[in-house]
Parts: sequence; C-alpha cells; structure tokens
Amino acid sequence: MAIVTLTTDFGTADWFVGSMKGVIYGIQPDVNIVDITHEVPPGDIRTAAFLLMADYKCYPRLTVHCAVVDPGVGSDRPAIAVRTTDYHFVGPDNGVLSWALAREKVLEIRQLTNQDVFRQPVSPTFHGRDIFAPVAARLTQGVLLDWIGPEVSDYQELEWPVAELRGETLTGQILHVDRFGNCVTNIDAEALGALSGKELTVALPGGQTCPLKKFYKEVEAGQPLALIGSTGFLEIAINTGHAAKQFNLQVGTPLEVR
Amino acid sequence: MAIVTLTTDFGTADWFVGSMKGVIYGIQPDVNIVDITHEVPPGDIRTAAFLLMADYKCYPRLTVHCAVVDPGVGSDRPAIAVRTTDYHFVGPDNGVLSWALAREKVLEIRQLTNQDVFRQPVSPTFHGRDIFAPVAARLTQGVLLDWIGPEVSDYQELEWPVAELRGETLTGQILHVDRFGNCVTNIDAEALGALSGKELTVALPGGQTCPLKKFYKEVEAGQPLALIGSTGFLEIAINTGHAAKQFNLQVGTPLEVR
Amino acid sequence: MAIVTLTTDFGTADWFVGSMKGVIYGIQPDVNIVDITHEVPPGDIRTAAFLLMADYKCYPRLTVHCAVVDPGVGSDRPAIAVRTTDYHFVGPDNGVLSWALAREKVLEIRQLTNQDVFRQPVSPTFHGRDIFAPVAARLTQGVLLDWIGPEVSDYQELEWPVAELRGETLTGQILHVDRFGNCVTNIDAEALGALSGKELTVALPGGQTCPLKKFYKEVEAGQPLALIGSTGFLEIAINTGHAAKQFNLQVGTPLEVR
Repeated sequence: MAIVTLTTDFGTADWFVGSMKGVIYGIQPDVNIVDITHEVPPGDIRTAAFLLMADYKCYPRLTVHCAVVDPGVGSDRPAIAVRTTDYHFVGPDNGVLSWALAREKVLEIRQLTNQDVFRQPVSPTFHGRDIFAPVAARLTQGVLLDWIGPEVSDYQELEWPVAELRGETLTGQILHVDRFGNCVTNIDAEALGALSGKELTVALPGGQTCPLKKFYKEVEAGQPLALIGSTGFLEIAINTGHAAKQFNLQVGTPLEVR
Repeated sequence: MAIVTLTTDFGTADWFVGSMKGVIYGIQPDVNIVDITHEVPPGDIRTAAFLLMADYKCYPRLTVHCAVVDPGVGSDRPAIAVRTTDYHFVGPDNGVLSWALAREKVLEIRQLTNQDVFRQPVSPTFHGRDIFAPVAARLTQGVLLDWIGPEVSDYQELEWPVAELRGETLTGQILHVDRFGNCVTNIDAEALGALSGKELTVALPGGQTCPLKKFYKEVEAGQPLALIGSTGFLEIAINTGHAAKQFNLQVGTPLEVR
Repeated sequence: MAIVTLTTDFGTADWFVGSMKGVIYGIQPDVNIVDITHEVPPGDIRTAAFLLMADYKCYPRLTVHCAVVDPGVGSDRPAIAVRTTDYHFVGPDNGVLSWALAREKVLEIRQLTNQDVFRQPVSPTFHGRDIFAPVAARLTQGVLLDWIGPEVSDYQELEWPVAELRGETLTGQILHVDRFGNCVTNIDAEALGALSGKELTVALPGGQTCPLKKFYKEVEAGQPLALIGSTGFLEIAINTGHAAKQFNLQVGTPLEVR
C-alpha cells in the first residue's frame, strides 16, 4: 500500500491535519498516512528539515514525504515535488526538504503549478490542504511528474552547520533537543573518525565533560555521557536525566570533542 | 476503503482513543481511522462543533464522522446517528454535531438504542468505546439505519452567533484561536460582501485596526491583518506573529468590520 | 488487516514514532498501526503497563501489542515476545508488559535474539526502531516464534499494589490520573463486592468523602463522587471538575472505601 508521511508545524488541536488527510484519502483511498510530527515549532524550517532527515530513510521505497512548514504561504515562494532514487518529496521550496535531499540522489525537480492537480479554490493560507495534499496523493498513483508542473534545475538549500576540525579538536553545535533532553549535534561518526584512537570526551560551554560511550547505562544514573545516537550523530545525554535542562543546552549551543 | 473520523476531548495520553480504535477495527478491519483532533478542551462542545464543521467536508463521500465530547455521558441525554446526502455523523445529541449538520442536507436521524449494536457491557462513563465506536464501525458497513434505533425528527442545535450588520458596520466575534494565534471569526465571505466596494478594516476592542488582505506576507512581519481564512471565515492574524497573545484576543472577543 | 499497537514514552515531537512506523510498513505494508499513546512520562514503566492493561483487550484477536518504555536500552536487559491465547506482546522485559500479561493466558515467551530479524545495524539507543518494530511486523505475518529467539520460562513482573481489606474498610491507592482529572484506583468491582450491601463512600486523605455512584451526572456539577470506571476499577471524580487538582491527588495517594 502507498505511504504518505506528513511533517508539519500544524499541531494536533486544530483542523489542519485532518483536512490534509481527508483530501489525500479522497484522491487515494489505499494509502497509509503517517504522521512524522506536527509539533514542529510554528515556522521553524530547520527543525522540520532535521526531523525529516532523521526519519525519511526508515520508510520503504516510493514513499511520498510531504513537509509543510510554510511561513511564506500565499506569497510567490515556489512549491516543489522532488523525485529521488527511492522517494518523492513534496513541500514549499524554502529549505524544509533540503537536508533530506542532500542525502539522496535527486533525479527530477518539478515546480507545482498545474491548477488541475490542486484542490479548488486554492486558499491563500492553507496550501497544505489545497496544493501539497493533492500532489502527494497523486504521486502515490505514479503520475508522470510533467503533469505536476515544469522541471526546475535546483531547490533552495538550508545551510548545514559543518563541524570544524582544528588539530585534535572538533567543534560542533547542537541541532536538536529531543523529548528526553538528549541533544543531537551536527557531528557524525565519520567526523569523529578523524579523532579516533583516543579516549574522546565532549566539552560543554558550562565546563562539563562527557565521556564518549555506546549506550546510556554505561555510566551511573545521573551521570553525563556522549554517544553516537540512532540518527548517526553525536548526542549529549544524562543517563535517566535531562541533559538539556541540567546543562542549559539548546539548539545552537557550541561544543568541542577532544 | 471506509473512513471514520474522530473528534474528541480525550487527549492522547490516556487509553480512551486507543480503545475506540480497537473496537472499530474489531468490527471493520478495512477502515482508515483519522484523528481530526483529540485536543478539544474537556467538555467544550462549541470547540468540537467548530472543528468538525471546519474539517468534515474535506473527506470523501460516505465518511463516518464521529464526535465525542460528552459531559453528560451516562445520563439520559440521547445519542444519535445522522445521515446526510454525503456523510454519516455519530455522537451525543448535545449540539456537537450541529454546526456541521447545519451545512448539510439531513436525510435521516436515528437515536442509538439497539443494545445489540453496542459493546457489552456498556460502561456508564465511556460511551465513546461502547456505543459510538461500534455504531460508527457498523455505519461504514452500510447497515440499514433502522437497525440502530428509532427515527427521531430533530437534533439539538448549538446556537450560532450571527454577525450583525448595522449601516456600514458588521459586528462579529472570535470563534476559535488556532495554534498560530490566528483568530477565526463568525464572519464569512458572504457577510463581508454586504460591505464590498470599500477598503475594509477590522477594529479590535483594544483599538487596533487590521486591514483586509489576501495572505499573510502582504503586510510586513509583525504587522496585523485580516483575511478570509481556509475555512471561509474572516481571521485576524499577525504576519509571523501570534495575534491572540499580542492583542489579548480569545473566543468570544467582539470585533467590527468597517 | 493486521494490527500493531504502540505504547511508548517517545512523545510526538521527535522522529522516534515515525521511524518505528516506517520500519513496520517496510516489512508489512498491510497493517493498521494504532497509537495507544506516546505520552507516557519518560521512563515511567508503571504508567505504560497500566495504559496497555487498560486498552489491549479492546483489540481483535491476533493484534500485536508493542510497548517501548525502555530506560535500559542498550544494556543487557532482555527483550521478549509473548504469545497469549489472543494476542502477541513485544517489548523490553522490564515489566512494561506484565500487567496486561497477568490477565492473559500466556502460551509462549521468546527472548529476542535473532539478528536476522532486526534492522541492521542495531542502534544501542533505539531498539524501538531496530528490534521491536521489525519483530512486531514479523509477528503480524504469522512467523514461527522459534525464528525470533529461544524460549524462556518467565518474564519480569511489575508488582501490583493489592488493595487490602480489614474489617469493613478497603484500603487502596491511585494508579493513574486521566486527562479529566479522574483518578483510577487499584480497587476493582470484585474487591468492592466484599463490602456490598451498604452505601459505600470513599474517604480521601484530605478528609473529603465521595459517595459511590454509577455516572458523573448523578451528583451536582462540582460535587465529588466515586464510580466503577470503564476499565473496571474504582475512580474518584468530580462532575465537570478535575478531582486530581481540587483534592491534590496523584499516583500513589492512598484512600479508603467504607
């Protein structure tokens, strides 16, 4: 069965998500619609880009990933559908898709322009329902992309904060704080490899140091550690604790691995 | 595939929603169950009525819309199933269905009385699981409504706050505040039409005025505006801001369009 | 269609739940995945055990119940799959399944050890995605359990707080506070039966007394009551009020029925 995933900042207390799902089911009854999350902070394109990047590869081939964090809705910012080797992606062309796309082989990018595909009349404030939902539904039906709109050569990229290596120190930053207070950084296992062969520790701005471990219970309850998390990035954590609160860490906080 | 939508005040931290879904799947395995929302404030029939009204028309024909905000559960308040030209609606007869039904052509109203349809024993505190879920599941199977219970002639209506036109001023109020702080009013595009031909502005109780625009980015970031939102009603918003917080607006706040 | 239920402490703002669902759909496209809840407080095995116990029986036979509240992830705590007369259960062997299992006839317990079943490489911090999701998906396909791992004789039990009867007084405690502020206790209808034939009241530590009723509206709005709730346990409630806040009740608060 076809799959459409949704990543939005719509929350779950309003009518927005339900409207998108109703439109998708109306076009494609045989589809599993999966909520990646609707709790992206309003307008926070980076968080949505991170979460989509963290999740999209868990889905089977031909899944359609639809991300709608769209503060420019109704203006002339373009909307796009992107075909990669394994997936389709749909959303506003504001960078929200770009961190996932950077890890894919992009085969084709289309601008969404064909009014026949959209739900009519198109509301200037809710393209999730009127443009992105119907396009996502159509993509699960194997439509040819040239029906959606003209090919374009590029999509808007969100800058990726590259970790910097200087001598024996790798400087990175926090990209995401999860529900458990674990802090995901922009440092991946490969970057850590440049420092391998030593006992590594992560130094935080508050002076704390976190030894590099493999899982939480390798340190005592309440003790900090760093580990390669499930998305492949270095994370700061406290065993059975909340690292972000205890160490006052947030998105953008810098740190060093030595 | 059949669709059942759920609109409740059950939240998502307890066992209530899962129980309803389990019961529905047990009767009808081939169904897509869609959460419109479970975040209706406890017992807030008006908010549920508004959200159902805002969402129900996005769904394909024959969808069964089930709404359970039911402070009178266990008492003798009736429960109903309503067939309209396009949909079925199921819920307590306390007004929660009425704003959606007012926009539909009602063909048949049945009171839910047949114990054979219910999950037994019926808990006096959880009709969502024991009455509404099984009835909704049965309705997706095309059962004849006379099996559900006797026909009744009417359903309880929730009063709709009508916008008032006096001379060149239209007086309305706020019906719903969404996640973004946008404030949906009871004034629809048709009512605005009576004032057409001028540059309209909305006056708020705090003295602010919001020019009528088409989408958020027509004003600078941080500036207020009014627009016809995706549900067809006038909304008060701040581009990339939170109008409800900044202007101290809430459900029931009056406003004037001139 | 097969059903997998999920009960976790992952929240809905991160990528965790989406990843589990993607993995399940990749193995078993024809499955309904139902969220019982993801709002279990982080690491709170008892709350998850309670919610699973409250919900699991609403599902049709052969449903696979997967619960992941797993503070010991990555350590050597075992993971298990349990077959009962009607269901499969999957999760870490830390007690999270045990209150549901105590109400079932257990037929077979398997330790999850076969790396061929898991998603590879297995992250030491996210067995939900890499172990529990693929095992749950495989169980919907009717695989033989000996493919999953070796049979074991027992699972870890979470202690159940037994209500104590002394003379004409039954002493219990609060197990769960729901969204409405209703407080579910460990006293079931059977235990109450030992006191039958009198007008029962529940005495709270703050000195309040709650008469035993059948549904909320049997008392005036704002008045307290006790009733047998939809899970079969005695609950403390206030009609249209929030008993937990008003009476300062929480999980573990003792109470007496006389």
